[in-house]
Amino acid sequence: MSEARGQLLLVPNTLDLGTETVDIQQVLPLGVMQRAAGLAHWVAEDARSTRAFLKRVHSVVPLGMALQSIDIRELPRPAKGGAAARLPSLDVWRGLLAPALSGHDLGLISEAGLPAVADPGAALVAAAHSLSIAVVPLPGASSLLLALAASGLNGQSFAFVGYLPQEASARASRAKELQAQSRRARQTIVLIETPYRNALVLQALISALEDDTRLSVSCGLSLPSGWTRTDSVAAWRAHPSTLPDRIPAVFSFLAE
Amino acid sequence: MSEARGQLLLVPNTLDLGTETVDIQQVLPLGVMQRAAGLAHWVAEDARSTRAFLKRVHSVVPLGMALQSIDIRELPRPAKGGAAARLPSLDVWRGLLAPALSGHDLGLISEAGLPAVADPGAALVAAAHSLSIAVVPLPGASSLLLALAASGLNGQSFAFVGYLPQEASARASRAKELQAQSRRARQTIVLIETPYRNALVLQALISALEDDTRLSVSCGLSLPSGWTRTDSVAAWRAHPSTLPDRIPAVFSFLAE
Repeated sequence: MSEARGQLLLVPNTLDLGTETVDIQQVLPLGVMQRAAGLAHWVAEDARSTRAFLKRVHSVVPLGMALQSIDIRELPRPAKGGAAARLPSLDVWRGLLAPALSGHDLGLISEAGLPAVADPGAALVAAAHSLSIAVVPLPGASSLLLALAASGLNGQSFAFVGYLPQEASARASRAKELQAQSRRARQTIVLIETPYRNALVLQALISALEDDTRLSVSCGLSLPSGWTRTDSVAAWRAHPSTLPDRIPAVFSFLAE
Repeated sequence: MSEARGQLLLVPNTLDLGTETVDIQQVLPLGVMQRAAGLAHWVAEDARSTRAFLKRVHSVVPLGMALQSIDIRELPRPAKGGAAARLPSLDVWRGLLAPALSGHDLGLISEAGLPAVADPGAALVAAAHSLSIAVVPLPGASSLLLALAASGLNGQSFAFVGYLPQEASARASRAKELQAQSRRARQTIVLIETPYRNALVLQALISALEDDTRLSVSCGLSLPSGWTRTDSVAAWRAHPSTLPDRIPAVFSFLAE
């Protein structure tokens, strides 16, 4: 049965959110662009930015067909509140996976980095497994792991915890709770935030964490202007860094 | 002061452990090979495999100097038992970072994937930060994150926990403890093993975890023969897969 199925290819995107700050050849393998250029069917967070991605690919590897004739469908928006009852049914995923069910390879792409990590694509991948569609992750960077590598913090044990709560006192208690977990498990904690809240989250971490906790911030990963700073919380307090409000940052910390 | 320093470049390796199963252009960005080809100084887990990596790079981007004249130093082997007191002192790291301290860019490379993640390189990166050497992670794949993406399990919250204990009963209780943690935090647990123990670890997970827990195994990531299977533990028990004993696998699971 599965002989007749196409594959679900997980296609890594650049990390510059389509600003084209970097030449795509600097950041994506040729093999990834060759696979992407041949795909007639895509599932994406956003069709418009996927067309922009395909134009960048086309500048290196000509697309196998006209851009207008490429089928790009969008993932359902996650319901606010995230109640399981409101998750799309298997029928929705089956519809999106229809090209693979009828023998065509299908690409899944995210707005930045690897699809299905810190984005809504994982449910599509789960549905593919349940329908015996082979899932093939193409090699590419994740900003979470580049930040972890650049932090110099423990890379043998780490947890990605998503976002901190938005309300100030809940944010502070969550940061302290994660610090206790980090100390107990000798585990690096990795988290992200929407760029316009970068400064707010840095301030919250600096206030909530203890002097000796080592805190790392990576900003603009893969961009020429990118940087990573790792320092004790005490040193961050004494010499704060200014974070840009339009460039994604990744925060990580390890309590001694 | 830091104007005179070189950068520490974190150079991603392929995931095929130097077997050259794949063309390097299929898996590494051109920009990464261009940066790697220009470096005169490296720190590596293994000098011999780093020379093999540089030969592969040279087949695409000619090296800036003769291979024999490239300076490759090895990271100190981690002490067995891992007591903090036996960690190398800052002097050891300062010695390895000497080229960057005197103004030359220095590459750090691992045996597979990103350096300083699940390997001994993080201490060198930490030392670089403490000596005001800029750390620049070049974009590349980590097998941990490719496996997580391909699993379809929760990519919004996950923990990498390294290896399970070797002793059978300790291994089983650790697996159960991690399953409880996964359920409590809705967190995907990611772990690895040395390839010759792949089958043993799969058997241990299948025995220790509950029927409904979803278990994913990725084998041979980035290789043409690579595959990912995600299924309930009950389905793994009913229809076991055979894991090769020479190809790295990544295991992940999520308890409902």
